[in-house]
Amino acid sequence: TNPVYTGLPTTIFEVMSRLAIEHGSINLGQGFPDVDGPEDLRRLAADALVAGPNQYPPMMGLPELRAAVADVDRRFYGLDLDWKREILVTSGATEALSDIITALIEPGDEVVLIEPLYDCYLPLVRRAGGIPRLVRLTPPEWKLDVAALEAAFSDKTKAILLNNPMNPAAKVFSREELAAIAELCVRFDAYAICDEVYEHIRFDGRGHIPLMTLPGMRERAIRIGSAGKTFSFTGWKVGYVAAAPALLDPIAKAHQFTTFTTPPHLQKAVAAGLAKDDAYYAELSGALAAKRDRLAAGLERLGFGVVPCGGTYFVSADVAPLGLGANDVELCRRMTVEAGVTAVPVSAFYAENGPSHFVRFCFSKRDEILDEALNRLGTWI
Amino acid sequence: TNPVYTGLPTTIFEVMSRLAIEHGSINLGQGFPDVDGPEDLRRLAADALVAGPNQYPPMMGLPELRAAVADVDRRFYGLDLDWKREILVTSGATEALSDIITALIEPGDEVVLIEPLYDCYLPLVRRAGGIPRLVRLTPPEWKLDVAALEAAFSDKTKAILLNNPMNPAAKVFSREELAAIAELCVRFDAYAICDEVYEHIRFDGRGHIPLMTLPGMRERAIRIGSAGKTFSFTGWKVGYVAAAPALLDPIAKAHQFTTFTTPPHLQKAVAAGLAKDDAYYAELSGALAAKRDRLAAGLERLGFGVVPCGGTYFVSADVAPLGLGANDVELCRRMTVEAGVTAVPVSAFYAENGPSHFVRFCFSKRDEILDEALNRLGTWI
Ligand SMILES: CSCCC(=O)C(=O)O
Ligand SMILES: CSCCC(=O)C(=O)O
Repeated sequence: TNPVYTGLPTTIFEVMSRLAIEHGSINLGQGFPDVDGPEDLRRLAADALVAGPNQYPPMMGLPELRAAVADVDRRFYGLDLDWKREILVTSGATEALSDIITALIEPGDEVVLIEPLYDCYLPLVRRAGGIPRLVRLTPPEWKLDVAALEAAFSDKTKAILLNNPMNPAAKVFSREELAAIAELCVRFDAYAICDEVYEHIRFDGRGHIPLMTLPGMRERAIRIGSAGKTFSFTGWKVGYVAAAPALLDPIAKAHQFTTFTTPPHLQKAVAAGLAKDDAYYAELSGALAAKRDRLAAGLERLGFGVVPCGGTYFVSADVAPLGLGANDVELCRRMTVEAGVTAVPVSAFYAENGPSHFVRFCFSKRDEILDEALNRLGTWI
Repeated sequence: TNPVYTGLPTTIFEVMSRLAIEHGSINLGQGFPDVDGPEDLRRLAADALVAGPNQYPPMMGLPELRAAVADVDRRFYGLDLDWKREILVTSGATEALSDIITALIEPGDEVVLIEPLYDCYLPLVRRAGGIPRLVRLTPPEWKLDVAALEAAFSDKTKAILLNNPMNPAAKVFSREELAAIAELCVRFDAYAICDEVYEHIRFDGRGHIPLMTLPGMRERAIRIGSAGKTFSFTGWKVGYVAAAPALLDPIAKAHQFTTFTTPPHLQKAVAAGLAKDDAYYAELSGALAAKRDRLAAGLERLGFGVVPCGGTYFVSADVAPLGLGANDVELCRRMTVEAGVTAVPVSAFYAENGPSHFVRFCFSKRDEILDEALNRLGTWI
């Protein structure tokens, strides 16, 4: 069997979710909302499912969804995407990442990755024969050291993989940081694979700036979005990719031989969802900001060192002030078993030797669940 | 970009479907039914969708679907699969193939493939760095030359990829042929990747014999099934993989980083579908056998040389008797534009230099559509 996958552990999200179920623990590990997204979209999808046809839609995605993706990207970011040549629908953002990395990376290509990083990035790059070049953000503010980033680029750099807003750091990259990244991509003639699934989940008036909108990036950036995140249906597995035709073409070939298509009734509902008014998008961020505040304030009260959170479903906490900072993996296990609250160790987002005193909590949960988790943690501490 | 995908054509099914739409042609090209599957399953999925949760199901699939797959394989084939360790749900059989080949094939491994072959096999093997070893069946009966097959095996053989019932040849492999294949797998210590998506669509009393049931194959065979085919919902993209734990483990890792999961409402409906009584399965094959007969008889009347068809959605026809046998690709284009009937050239199922005088028709269409296609072909000829 292929050595990239043999012996690889099950993803930390699944491991912690299984452990949470086993111990009846409150699961603030794996990132998903515990309240489903808009009922009108569920009904629309259900009606399309009953009415049919339930047969293969076009390989690139339903025209109405591809057009809706281009429209919403014009509305929010002023992007001018030609949906017929520059938009692809995938079975979730994970498939999008797999398609993109498979299509663009050749053995020996270097790929710049920023730690802490989402857990599928490294195996996907390695499976394609790519060589990861890792750069670390500095906690607790997760500052980007531009000199370190520059040092990671070279003639062999094929791409940078950027997650913005960033999971698990909950960092929203600033315009200055993005400009520095774009400048490096242009200088080293590299692509930017932009995992922007949390684009519509950011707080305190922060805007989202697609790297694709920066000078020189329109033809270099590949932008990934996710209906799961934007409409709170993580189980639907509908994602989309925007890229210039020369890049999208090989990505579509990888898609063609990976899932080929995505269920049409879900695509139809997502197309309708993307056309929702600005109030929908504002409410999505607003509701989650309130949950962030609720959980962060509670964690602070308990003595955790809460890390700033600008977007995503996640807030990280430094456990060192509580004297719990020696081993985050073991701590998360103990918290599940003893406290009945499950989090994810931040060291799991590092290739090796990550910091061992941060844990990540998911706050996209009902208020009473967040309160009960805080209660349990309080009792346990 | 990765050379395996750059410059690769769009799949022939998509190309012909687009051409058919463009010319208002009857599409007997791409394989899908034009009547959706059971309404009770659609309603069950729709209800689950409205009720939710629509969040990530477990990475391996819903327990009820995994158990249902093991149950139906016990019922029909006497297979004894432990669903907790030996069944994985995927987003369609194409994802299953991608996961399996990604997980099992290392650069330099040889993979035995049988032509004519389904169009994603070669790119998936090549993308994994595998070296295809091609063996041809002999038309029009698509006979397997066991000596040629044996010659394709070597010390470097990692796997054979077998499609049974076979698309586009519509061949159901005999027990003798399967025994010969199994013997080679055992002798050369090779895996068998068994694409058995048409397992429940076979005619004239032919049984389906999973290669996994042959001596020595329980631990070597990886079996792929498809809800799209078994329930006439090709757009649902729900597939399943059965394999011994040592093989399924790395395959699940590939799945984890390819789509991660599959929509839970569809999994729930498929679980219910698999438990349908024997009459459902018999009716699926029975209805399609009648359609095969209808189309085959009509084609014969028109002078096509109809090739025997033991299963699948497809019947192939030799166009040489009509004097149309020089270039099947051009013929299919002309038939679409001039006759208003779309088929798929069989040479598209060969790496190179395939026979140029066969075209494949899909008969999983309403009777009036088949009749109208025959009318149009008759007028055109
Ligand atoms: C693919 S399950 C993980 C969900 C997620 O994005 C996270 O928890 O970080
Ligand atoms: C993935 S679209 C092709 C459908 C099919 O199986 C075929 O036409 O052979």
